[in-house]
Amino acid sequence: MGNPTAAMLVIGDEILSGRTRDANMHHLAQELTKHGIDLKEVRIVSDDAPAIVAAVRALSAGYTHVFTSGGIGPTHDDITADCIAEAFGQSIDIRADARALLEAHYARTGLELNAARLRMARIPEKATLIENPVSVAPGFTVGNVHVMAGVPSVFQAMVASVLPGLTGGAPLLSQSLRIMRGEGDIAETLGQLARDFADLSIGCYPFQKDGAYGANVVVRGSDGARVDAAITRLAAELGL
Amino acid sequence: MGNPTAAMLVIGDEILSGRTRDANMHHLAQELTKHGIDLKEVRIVSDDAPAIVAAVRALSAGYTHVFTSGGIGPTHDDITADCIAEAFGQSIDIRADARALLEAHYARTGLELNAARLRMARIPEKATLIENPVSVAPGFTVGNVHVMAGVPSVFQAMVASVLPGLTGGAPLLSQSLRIMRGEGDIAETLGQLARDFADLSIGCYPFQKDGAYGANVVVRGSDGARVDAAITRLAAELGL
Repeated sequence: MGNPTAAMLVIGDEILSGRTRDANMHHLAQELTKHGIDLKEVRIVSDDAPAIVAAVRALSAGYTHVFTSGGIGPTHDDITADCIAEAFGQSIDIRADARALLEAHYARTGLELNAARLRMARIPEKATLIENPVSVAPGFTVGNVHVMAGVPSVFQAMVASVLPGLTGGAPLLSQSLRIMRGEGDIAETLGQLARDFADLSIGCYPFQKDGAYGANVVVRGSDGARVDAAITRLAAELGL
Repeated sequence: MGNPTAAMLVIGDEILSGRTRDANMHHLAQELTKHGIDLKEVRIVSDDAPAIVAAVRALSAGYTHVFTSGGIGPTHDDITADCIAEAFGQSIDIRADARALLEAHYARTGLELNAARLRMARIPEKATLIENPVSVAPGFTVGNVHVMAGVPSVFQAMVASVLPGLTGGAPLLSQSLRIMRGEGDIAETLGQLARDFADLSIGCYPFQKDGAYGANVVVRGSDGARVDAAITRLAAELGL
């Protein structure tokens, strides 16, 4: 459909170990869809520098935009900023602009700006800062990679800071039809619909409820009239 | 830690568009952790054959085991089986063993085994079938790739069929400490702990609640006495 593309890179052991569920992917997917940017791939890697560097390089080369979450806090396992610098061959150190933000914040709150917290001012040399209205420590953009925090409230605030500055395409519209038949009964109808509406994406998501089979059919596209037409025809053909 | 490694590949547009949240990743992560297999990477790709084939090849080469979810149903967007065959250079067609399973099932239920449903018997030539006690249509294993359904109840049943046959390592044990201080206040203590317990993984996951900062520190390892020792020392050093 010609929209800009995007990938997300989630960094951190906590999801891979099953300890927590990721909350940021779902939020980003919805925001990008609204903004007309097609999220094409998500990768989750552990707090392992070679894995992070390799994923950043691969995704940066493959998509218009890359959004990362996690690993930019003050603790020893926060290695994302250094990995981004390495992936882009840039130097990294405590930067005056980021340090000034932290100094002002900690002066206000009365907390000590110690060596650990100063790590959050380590920013690659050519990065642009991303505003963090929640807890001040900034994210940053290097090339086409937007580096954001993993804490959901901070991640969401940073997405809100970044997205308005990115060129979007036509927002992806969708309609769905809930059908209480097995997928196998509607597959032929759906296949023909997908061929006749090749400009749309037609997905079928089966479920089982109380022993009965059903499926949600979702029609997506940027042309609302076409989406309407496909849903109308599908409902008519299935006698709904 | 010498445990076998694993990657997961989630196939399907519905998560990338923000329509649904993935439920299978969290389940697999927990089951693998119990079984002593280290989940190192997750990728989510759309219903796009080149993207699926490339991801299968990369993950199969990089990890001991690969688990896929999604795309093995009867509809036009179910292209996983063909992509797996392509990734491994195997032919694929309706296979007699899988067809027999479906014939018996549909004979019992009185539903028609039509052309769409027969697609679920398309299995790569050298694959081993994975039992599906929920809805019969099998998953399959090719090489080190275990191909499973996306419907959570079926996915979970297939994981339960596959895991007992895989060699696991020492299960990963974890303990956590909830600390009502900012990450920046405990970062130095944690960094020293991580250096002194280099055989363990020590993660710090910050949160904000009612305006206060806190962090969950999670210590993971396969030696329970070492995990105990690290948590005990951390609590003592923080005066908890």
